[in-house]
Amino acid sequence: MPVVKFYYFPIKALGEGPRLLLAYGGQEFQDIRVDKESWPEFKPKTKYGQMPILEIDGKQYAQSAAICRYLASRYGLAGADAEQNFEIDEAVDFFNDIRAKAAQVHYEEDEKVKEKRHETYSQTVYPDLLGKLHDIVQRNNGHLAANKLTWADFYFAGVYDYMKVMLRRPDLDQQYPGFAKVYETVYSLPKVKAFADAAPKTDF
Amino acid sequence: MPVVKFYYFPIKALGEGPRLLLAYGGQEFQDIRVDKESWPEFKPKTKYGQMPILEIDGKQYAQSAAICRYLASRYGLAGADAEQNFEIDEAVDFFNDIRAKAAQVHYEEDEKVKEKRHETYSQTVYPDLLGKLHDIVQRNNGHLAANKLTWADFYFAGVYDYMKVMLRRPDLDQQYPGFAKVYETVYSLPKVKAFADAAPKTDF
Repeated sequence: MPVVKFYYFPIKALGEGPRLLLAYGGQEFQDIRVDKESWPEFKPKTKYGQMPILEIDGKQYAQSAAICRYLASRYGLAGADAEQNFEIDEAVDFFNDIRAKAAQVHYEEDEKVKEKRHETYSQTVYPDLLGKLHDIVQRNNGHLAANKLTWADFYFAGVYDYMKVMLRRPDLDQQYPGFAKVYETVYSLPKVKAFADAAPKTDF
Repeated sequence: MPVVKFYYFPIKALGEGPRLLLAYGGQEFQDIRVDKESWPEFKPKTKYGQMPILEIDGKQYAQSAAICRYLASRYGLAGADAEQNFEIDEAVDFFNDIRAKAAQVHYEEDEKVKEKRHETYSQTVYPDLLGKLHDIVQRNNGHLAANKLTWADFYFAGVYDYMKVMLRRPDLDQQYPGFAKVYETVYSLPKVKAFADAAPKTDF
């Protein structure tokens, strides 16, 4: 049995998708949560100075989406063919575009720029992009792609709570019930639920 | 024969990787360059209000990296197995992290914030990330991943000129000769060269 370790900050965000996939795959792993205080010491030991890091028998795998796609290929959560794999990748990248926009606000250090940008994006950017993402979910019967459960749903579910924080939209579920459905579908899978119930509680 | 159209702004950036892959694959396609003036009219006709768009017999494919991965699976430029595919995805996502940082500067509208951020990133962020990306290229003998030509090289080569502009580093080749090697390797491939020689000239 390989020794599997997974390193990320003690939040969901970009770490949760891989965690949930490992749980879904029935893979025993050390769920190592590196807090802000320990990060500077651990950072130089990571492949590119970033987390998440998946480590399998000492070999490191970096980049959240790449890790998810890799695990999905092992656990039957990839697409059935090139067309479906494309659909998955396209949806994940589109979701990441929204995440990147929200991060541009969330991580802005200049308070005035930050608030102005939040205002602008909330009026002109988010409604359009979120609406289009919700259309994707509706078209795929509560999934991100391929009309079925794929790693895209795990990636989305993992990032979703953090997304709400960055968008400042705790009410996102009400406006976009399809998003809540993806989230609940993933977290209701028996092995995922067992993992999440036992995992440290975190708000996002 | 399918009718293939490719839509992007009249620059390389996120459109060039797919163009070069189509050329490499010997795929005849209409290389449609949508300028800023025409974009507002075309935007609502695209899948998600974004370019690039690859259109095959009327079906639209969005998202640059997803399109590249999809084309690569047709043209023998994916990895040989899940490990190699992971390596490709990881390298592309890491490169995209650097691109995103540079874009945070390049697209900042507040001049003061922009210049301060450029200064900070140039001192503390870019050297580390670019150095690590260059290490990847050195380890892979002049490629982004898997020690061989893959779609990651095409994606990189396509974005590279724009990256130099966003980083304000026209001299990047001198400090990181491996980057120039990837670029030259891709643009020297006979079908790619033929396409690039005949394509409209653009600075980035």
